Amino acid sequence: MTLSGTSFLGYQRGRTGGAVFHATDLASGQPLSPPAHAAHPDEVDTACALAWQAFRAWRQRPDADRAAFLRAVADGLDARVADLVAVTCRETALPEGRVRGETGRTSGQLRLFAGLLESGAWMDARHEAADPARKPAPKPALRSRLIGLGPVAVFGASNFPLAFSTAGGDTAAAWAAGCPVVVKGHPCHPQTSEIVAEVIVAAARATGQPEGVFSLLFDPGHALGQALVSHPRIQAVGFTGSRAGGLALMKIAAARPQPIPVFAEMSSVNPVFLLPEALATRGESLAAATHGSYTMGSGQFCTCPGLLVGDVADPASPYVAKLRELTAATPALSMLSPAIAARYREGVAHLRGLPGVQLLAEGAPAGERQARATLLATTASAVQARPELLDEVFGPCTLLIHAPGAQDKLRLAAALEGQLTCTVHATAADLAAHADLLDELELKCGRLVFNGFPTGVEVNAAIVHGGPFPATSDGRSSSVGTFAIQRFLRPFCWQDDPRRG
Amino acid sequence: MTLSGTSFLGYQRGRTGGAVFHATDLASGQPLSPPAHAAHPDEVDTACALAWQAFRAWRQRPDADRAAFLRAVADGLDARVADLVAVTCRETALPEGRVRGETGRTSGQLRLFAGLLESGAWMDARHEAADPARKPAPKPALRSRLIGLGPVAVFGASNFPLAFSTAGGDTAAAWAAGCPVVVKGHPCHPQTSEIVAEVIVAAARATGQPEGVFSLLFDPGHALGQALVSHPRIQAVGFTGSRAGGLALMKIAAARPQPIPVFAEMSSVNPVFLLPEALATRGESLAAATHGSYTMGSGQFCTCPGLLVGDVADPASPYVAKLRELTAATPALSMLSPAIAARYREGVAHLRGLPGVQLLAEGAPAGERQARATLLATTASAVQARPELLDEVFGPCTLLIHAPGAQDKLRLAAALEGQLTCTVHATAADLAAHADLLDELELKCGRLVFNGFPTGVEVNAAIVHGGPFPATSDGRSSSVGTFAIQRFLRPFCWQDDPRRG
Repeated sequence: MTLSGTSFLGYQRGRTGGAVFHATDLASGQPLSPPAHAAHPDEVDTACALAWQAFRAWRQRPDADRAAFLRAVADGLDARVADLVAVTCRETALPEGRVRGETGRTSGQLRLFAGLLESGAWMDARHEAADPARKPAPKPALRSRLIGLGPVAVFGASNFPLAFSTAGGDTAAAWAAGCPVVVKGHPCHPQTSEIVAEVIVAAARATGQPEGVFSLLFDPGHALGQALVSHPRIQAVGFTGSRAGGLALMKIAAARPQPIPVFAEMSSVNPVFLLPEALATRGESLAAATHGSYTMGSGQFCTCPGLLVGDVADPASPYVAKLRELTAATPALSMLSPAIAARYREGVAHLRGLPGVQLLAEGAPAGERQARATLLATTASAVQARPELLDEVFGPCTLLIHAPGAQDKLRLAAALEGQLTCTVHATAADLAAHADLLDELELKCGRLVFNGFPTGVEVNAAIVHGGPFPATSDGRSSSVGTFAIQRFLRPFCWQDDPRRG
Repeated sequence: MTLSGTSFLGYQRGRTGGAVFHATDLASGQPLSPPAHAAHPDEVDTACALAWQAFRAWRQRPDADRAAFLRAVADGLDARVADLVAVTCRETALPEGRVRGETGRTSGQLRLFAGLLESGAWMDARHEAADPARKPAPKPALRSRLIGLGPVAVFGASNFPLAFSTAGGDTAAAWAAGCPVVVKGHPCHPQTSEIVAEVIVAAARATGQPEGVFSLLFDPGHALGQALVSHPRIQAVGFTGSRAGGLALMKIAAARPQPIPVFAEMSSVNPVFLLPEALATRGESLAAATHGSYTMGSGQFCTCPGLLVGDVADPASPYVAKLRELTAATPALSMLSPAIAARYREGVAHLRGLPGVQLLAEGAPAGERQARATLLATTASAVQARPELLDEVFGPCTLLIHAPGAQDKLRLAAALEGQLTCTVHATAADLAAHADLLDELELKCGRLVFNGFPTGVEVNAAIVHGGPFPATSDGRSSSVGTFAIQRFLRPFCWQDDPRRG
């Protein structure tokens, strides 16, 4: 395996000579070689021009061609899982099992969209037959269906180096829609991106795709991504990352001469409501599951449960006591990058310092590239006074909120911003007694989980991974599952087209 | 029939005491009585609070309730067609046949959405069954469907006082989606709006709807509409009107703490491409149909064909000669308001004054509240030098563009902005010789019409009335037909909900 660290412009490689940057070997803290080379500004143009050409060519080709391409990429990824394990574990500190699992999820997503393409159901084909005898005017024949928007810019995510990066969910959905993709690779895992890009280019060549269905641009900063979103050939944007990053892209896209949609999945604290009977009867097992969920992947999932709401003032209650015990026994957790680890430390320190917040337990002390699991506590009234207590801290930190009564919980739910998920733990009696709360939570999220945890997102036809702003920029979308294709489609109608009847 | 000119706040009427404004009796030019009363700023709050309450109540009720409401509004409108004829003809100068036809279209739209609701197909219900035995983790049950976004602000359109105003297409689609509507009435036809609002309120009461599913706010200016789009309870916007107006609303919506989608249908010149064999063999009949289309409704349709592209340099050719003759014989055409008539005069004067533009024919001279049909001519090379020749002039004006060869037409198509429609007149041989042009036009519009004219939009399941920016703010939407409901819906997923299985 020889890596060069240069961008991919269709079937060509980008130039060196610009800025270079290194990912970090997170075990040693040393920079990894070879470095990655930032793309040159003119290479944005090259990638977008190729993407536009490829878009025009894909429009003329059968969907089966794209399905074959998606399947070839999936097979190629599976075949290189050993290389991915070697590189991705080093760049991201994710364990081997996770990298293998995420590779399977990524190839599975690609095959899911290939199957969707083959089914034809995605295009929502509609037909109204002509009626030449209709009065007062003849009725024309109308045939409509969904068609692709054009080239899509995808921003690789730090926390899913495979499943939401170069050939991840956004890319697979865009390709399925007939939209070539220009990826801005995440600077934390350029080597992973390069391997995946090699797989994609080989699959595109092998299945005879037009050049430009894929490009990958490296850049350690923001300028290139901004240029990409501003480029007139780009017709939509897929992004998973911070709220600040998503808002910046939304602003750029809205200010273009031709505004384009941005699908940004940004921030969510995924509140978990512990209803009284469930908490009283299942406290210990709930605590174990809560701990597993909030520390899973070092808390670096967008569905990490960051708020735990219920009658939780008593530190000796089975739920709180067990959660404290498990948190205290948590080893230091590896983070995806030194920068993310640093932001986590700052976020926890800020939250701990706010009035009304109490530290309940901490895990083992963490090194510079690690995070210390943190269990904090506050009250519903403190939250009402200071809504920033509800802001996301990305990493293994969660906040118990004492909200004992049904009205306390309802008020807290009403104060929430938009979320990817909300969760309730409840018996049948709890559900019956909290109908208002359930209705309120439906307004606040895209997925409502019962007696489970929000982490572990299924990838299928019925999942919704989206939610009201600021969970996503456009709550009318999902970034996971087959629903995700709809972001990159628009309806089109042919009236009395003699070629279509 | 007694009208008061005050706003509707749920089941109450708004206060007087603010600014008053008058619609114009377009036959006499005199102000109509009674005047309309601008809503007070606090009435925006009242209407939005009621809409939010109603949204919460509607979420708990069966879809059949909303379908009954839609049908009751439809029946109520049909029953008051005589009143509408009396009032709307005076306020808008539309002829009686058009007002009757548009009333039928409006009630028909409401019944179309009622039927869609009753079918259940609109909700895109999806189900993935649980698999507790799945390894490594059990599979949860997922049920997802589309749900309503929340209260919608609808801006009445000047050019469809019924079908795209108070109970028009945007309102019907929003209601079907479960979204209460706050309408900002168009200041050109307050009396029409008031009659329609009376029908709506009576239907809401008769079918037992929660108060707040509808409010109507009057205002002669922009401030109230801006406050409405800024209001935190409003979750989406439907607008049909000018590009400047649509862009202003998009800007306000994007700058909110919680940005919301704006579905603005803004501007389109609806180019018609006259391919060589069709033009040579059907010149005269094409000219008659072109004239009928561009002067229909005094050219005040969003689908008015404003560009005619082909081999049209010879003023003695059958197509051009006939179009000149029919244009010259066109009587002065009544316009929807004095302001629209004035803007038309300005727009034509500006276009005529641009280099390379020639006047080919004019209709009868027009009075102050009328428009003079205008046929202009230019060349493809003049357009390349000055793209503003392609800008919309709202009214009965159309521009012949001499683009004789296939490459001329292709270049012109590539220079177009996004359109609601594009049209080709073509024989089978023409189509075969212009495949590139057809592909280019598909990129530019939402509906491609063959051997017909863009005016006369069907309302059914297969129509698309939308198109790439600036035809609409979001080319992924349609404002006509059942597809229009999707603007006001978002996907929602219940995971392992014991109430749903």
